[in-house]
Amino acid sequence: MLKEAIYHRPGNNFSYIYKDDTVHIRLQTKKADIDSVHLLFGDPYIFVNQAWQYEKAPMKKSGSTELYDYWFIEIKPEYRRLRYGFELSSKEETLIYTEKGFYEAIPTDDTAYYFCVPFVHKEDSFHAPDWVRDTIWYQIFPERFANGDPALNPADTQEWGSTEPTPTNFFGGDFQGVIDHVDHLVDLGVNGVYFTPIFKAYSNHKYDTIDYMEIDPQFGDKQTFQKMIDVLHDNGIRIMLDAVFNHSGYFFPQWQDVMEKGEESIYKDWFHIREFPIQTAPIPNYDTFAFTPFMPKLNTSHPEVKEYLLEVGRYWVREFGIDGWRLDVANEVDHHFWRDFRTEVKALNPDVYILGEIWHDSMPWLQGDQFDAVMNYPFTTGAVNFFAKDSITSTAFKHTITNVLHMYPNSVNEVSFNLLDSHDTPRILTLANDRKDKAKLLYLFLLSFTGTPCIYYGDEVGMNGTQDPGCRKCMVWDKDKQDLDLFAHIQKLITLRKSHPAFGNKGSFTFIEADSNIVMYQKTYKEEHIIFSINNTDEEQTFTIPVQDIDNKNVYDLYHDKEIIWSLEKELTLAPGAFSILQFKTSH
Amino acid sequence: MLKEAIYHRPGNNFSYIYKDDTVHIRLQTKKADIDSVHLLFGDPYIFVNQAWQYEKAPMKKSGSTELYDYWFIEIKPEYRRLRYGFELSSKEETLIYTEKGFYEAIPTDDTAYYFCVPFVHKEDSFHAPDWVRDTIWYQIFPERFANGDPALNPADTQEWGSTEPTPTNFFGGDFQGVIDHVDHLVDLGVNGVYFTPIFKAYSNHKYDTIDYMEIDPQFGDKQTFQKMIDVLHDNGIRIMLDAVFNHSGYFFPQWQDVMEKGEESIYKDWFHIREFPIQTAPIPNYDTFAFTPFMPKLNTSHPEVKEYLLEVGRYWVREFGIDGWRLDVANEVDHHFWRDFRTEVKALNPDVYILGEIWHDSMPWLQGDQFDAVMNYPFTTGAVNFFAKDSITSTAFKHTITNVLHMYPNSVNEVSFNLLDSHDTPRILTLANDRKDKAKLLYLFLLSFTGTPCIYYGDEVGMNGTQDPGCRKCMVWDKDKQDLDLFAHIQKLITLRKSHPAFGNKGSFTFIEADSNIVMYQKTYKEEHIIFSINNTDEEQTFTIPVQDIDNKNVYDLYHDKEIIWSLEKELTLAPGAFSILQFKTSH
Repeated sequence: MLKEAIYHRPGNNFSYIYKDDTVHIRLQTKKADIDSVHLLFGDPYIFVNQAWQYEKAPMKKSGSTELYDYWFIEIKPEYRRLRYGFELSSKEETLIYTEKGFYEAIPTDDTAYYFCVPFVHKEDSFHAPDWVRDTIWYQIFPERFANGDPALNPADTQEWGSTEPTPTNFFGGDFQGVIDHVDHLVDLGVNGVYFTPIFKAYSNHKYDTIDYMEIDPQFGDKQTFQKMIDVLHDNGIRIMLDAVFNHSGYFFPQWQDVMEKGEESIYKDWFHIREFPIQTAPIPNYDTFAFTPFMPKLNTSHPEVKEYLLEVGRYWVREFGIDGWRLDVANEVDHHFWRDFRTEVKALNPDVYILGEIWHDSMPWLQGDQFDAVMNYPFTTGAVNFFAKDSITSTAFKHTITNVLHMYPNSVNEVSFNLLDSHDTPRILTLANDRKDKAKLLYLFLLSFTGTPCIYYGDEVGMNGTQDPGCRKCMVWDKDKQDLDLFAHIQKLITLRKSHPAFGNKGSFTFIEADSNIVMYQKTYKEEHIIFSINNTDEEQTFTIPVQDIDNKNVYDLYHDKEIIWSLEKELTLAPGAFSILQFKTSH
Repeated sequence: MLKEAIYHRPGNNFSYIYKDDTVHIRLQTKKADIDSVHLLFGDPYIFVNQAWQYEKAPMKKSGSTELYDYWFIEIKPEYRRLRYGFELSSKEETLIYTEKGFYEAIPTDDTAYYFCVPFVHKEDSFHAPDWVRDTIWYQIFPERFANGDPALNPADTQEWGSTEPTPTNFFGGDFQGVIDHVDHLVDLGVNGVYFTPIFKAYSNHKYDTIDYMEIDPQFGDKQTFQKMIDVLHDNGIRIMLDAVFNHSGYFFPQWQDVMEKGEESIYKDWFHIREFPIQTAPIPNYDTFAFTPFMPKLNTSHPEVKEYLLEVGRYWVREFGIDGWRLDVANEVDHHFWRDFRTEVKALNPDVYILGEIWHDSMPWLQGDQFDAVMNYPFTTGAVNFFAKDSITSTAFKHTITNVLHMYPNSVNEVSFNLLDSHDTPRILTLANDRKDKAKLLYLFLLSFTGTPCIYYGDEVGMNGTQDPGCRKCMVWDKDKQDLDLFAHIQKLITLRKSHPAFGNKGSFTFIEADSNIVMYQKTYKEEHIIFSINNTDEEQTFTIPVQDIDNKNVYDLYHDKEIIWSLEKELTLAPGAFSILQFKTSH
């Protein structure tokens, strides 16, 4: 047994309160090194004749990556206290692994050897609002979704879709446009909209805020904003706004005051200024987003700044009933600020969702005290590299996705904000070299995976586009120019996700096979098992599905809506880029 | 290279803000597997010709355990942002290790591969009060330290030291006794006193609180308490009280109300009651400390309970100026409560120290948002097993202590509350089978180690005692019965610790040798190097000290206060249980 590869440390993704009084425990071991793992567990205080009274339960292998196997078990400790260790067995040996190290026999003279969940406090568990788990997001970049009120057009507004987007041009998208097209969202089946920033700003992307308490006039006024929210809510669609708290825009009046008055400005401590006089070039002598002089970094630990931004967080929840906040560059703002932000916003409405933009490992923000989710770019990378770019093997894809599922608690995974593209990346069709079959597979994977999927506006009708500004083209509303087949595909998958618990977040995800030419995975909830088979190769593939322990009579092709006559040996054939979605039921 | 053993995840003990703008980074690799490690690091946003601009710096091997080597580096990122990876080299290969996995060449097309410290926010760093680092604690169990005012004696008080302690007898220790003996503390040299509970309670140990806002009358009144604090403060001694917030006592009026009125009690939600009517046997049907019916667990997430206990935390700081809170059974109380506790107490006085009683891995409580330190029982176990019980080899001892130093950030280690024994364990002399030479070595190790040492009352005059109640005997004040030689030993070590920066927390700790019959370690600060050599065997040992790069002219025997004529080949001889403390200076 390779002891050096064995890892468990309480907390993070290794032990956590899942929900109510349930605890999840995971263990890492070297790949294919250990045959079975049992959890040894019990209350820390129950001894009989000075011997600790423990129970023993088998752990399940929940996945394998290139280097490791992961083991999993769910436990409900009777008195909400838990001490535990692991009994690892291979053909050669059996070892006991505890917080104090390895033993050959199970120590029972004391519980201090063992790992500890001191007490299961609900307050300390990670818990996102329940509605999030069932949400299918749609991302709107408001300047480019629809121009419903030309009277609001900024100066030099271009005719809708008449030219390519540039970093600085305007097409006049606005709230009335969203109101006018709410039927499109309903038709597609999404039930949450994430808007990139809508507050008064200078640029077309609005990430350079001038006033966090005002709507940008090109989008409408507060009345129209409220009307849009009402229309969305009436159609069962939640709304999430984008909060840019890491930095302000250059024309934020407080920054302008500092630019004008220098050290005399009463706002000088609102920012991180390294020296006066301020200079913007060659490198700004004040902290900024990246080295962008137009985005001065806000000092979120300054009490006035903090109170100002917390009030922004409260204001749009309190006055307009928004359902979520997406937090821009969330990793560069201090944890103390985010803890207070969560406390303040959830005090107004515990059902508000808090989503952080973090591209790297986000475990420190996902402990239950800060964010409900982060944008799941590790998922994006794995899916894009495999399906769109063909740059990794199916085995590497399986390892990446298995790693994505094991880097956070399940409670986090179920509300992870999964995306294929955004206003910050090329569009998925472009990443897939305009191969629609590949885009279809990507949407299949996105919409059947654990977490909450997000569709970037226009992808559903076949829009393409390179890195910003190319990915920010005007939404195509002309039906003749829309890819209605792709639309129908995504719509169908959304319907299946909503109507089959196993398809969505209730279903547990497992790879069945990914080392051959077919990627096959299973989602299971109670008696329903949905098996997804995907041919991501350029050749036709024939294969069988290794179904076991499930009824081979009632097999249903969910995507084509027809029953299938099944046998264990039944061969399936998939054309290049094709897939199947089959529903099995547990035998009785 | 054994990839499976290589571990780094940002946060916890692996990367952290040490102080100001300094970041510490650690890496784990398989023991003796890798020859050198370099940190690759830079600002995430600095690219030249689309290539990331990184720097490269060697990491230092900071210690080895049975399975692993640990590598360390300190970095001060110019713009307070950091992306980093590791270049690992052995004779056979060189590998780049990043958050996204292993690479053969250094990726420079993007910084998203790399581990991330998004922004160095001082607010997010772990920071205990500065005074703690230089504190030498003394633990007083007030019922047994000194009886200064017999008028306060509880009923049936025994004559001081006339009989063995039992779980229920009283000897009348009180605050006046402490006041009377402050010269003893000053003489010994300690500068902090940790009192086990002093609030109104039923038992002799007072861990079963009746009223958190009142002093137990056997100790004195609030006026005497204030007088004691003043006397201690006037003598440069800080005072820490014990807060028992996990549970109340059985005679806590709110619990009595519940016992009396059952479901009708307005306090029923102050506790965790599983069902009514309440029953205390065979197993209480309400949550308790362990299964002790006399210690009902408090519901610290109930707003009234929370506010009541937070006010306790504030009250004794605000009204009496205490310097610290030691938190009993701290691990079983929820994290939310402790975060609020820290916020409230530090708002009154940021210099108040917060110490949690946790016996196991405490990383989740030591993130900067909850405790300043925990009671370092992993240290205790290592020291006791090696020096007192001779139950582990010197090599195993080195591994245990190296592990203790690598399980938390250095900032945490420097204020760890290190102890050899307490009111919850047998006394150290008893653990050492009454061998005073062993006790002397234990105090040498305790007082020269990283962290803040604590001496349990009476140990310094040679008191022994078995597990509670045996370890709670009356303090021996009769000079004829005190072991004055042991007192002088501890006193001498305290003086050295206070007068030599390298001896205390400014000195960095490194093992020089522990696999032979001499355990040798070094503490270094600037030009001062103190080398400790310990013979923990039962035979005389002769050895040399492998000093390098340090002046061999000015060698000083700190313990015996004399200069030594030195040569590189000089042989030292230590009797069984003997030690030497030699001071070297860096050559110029």
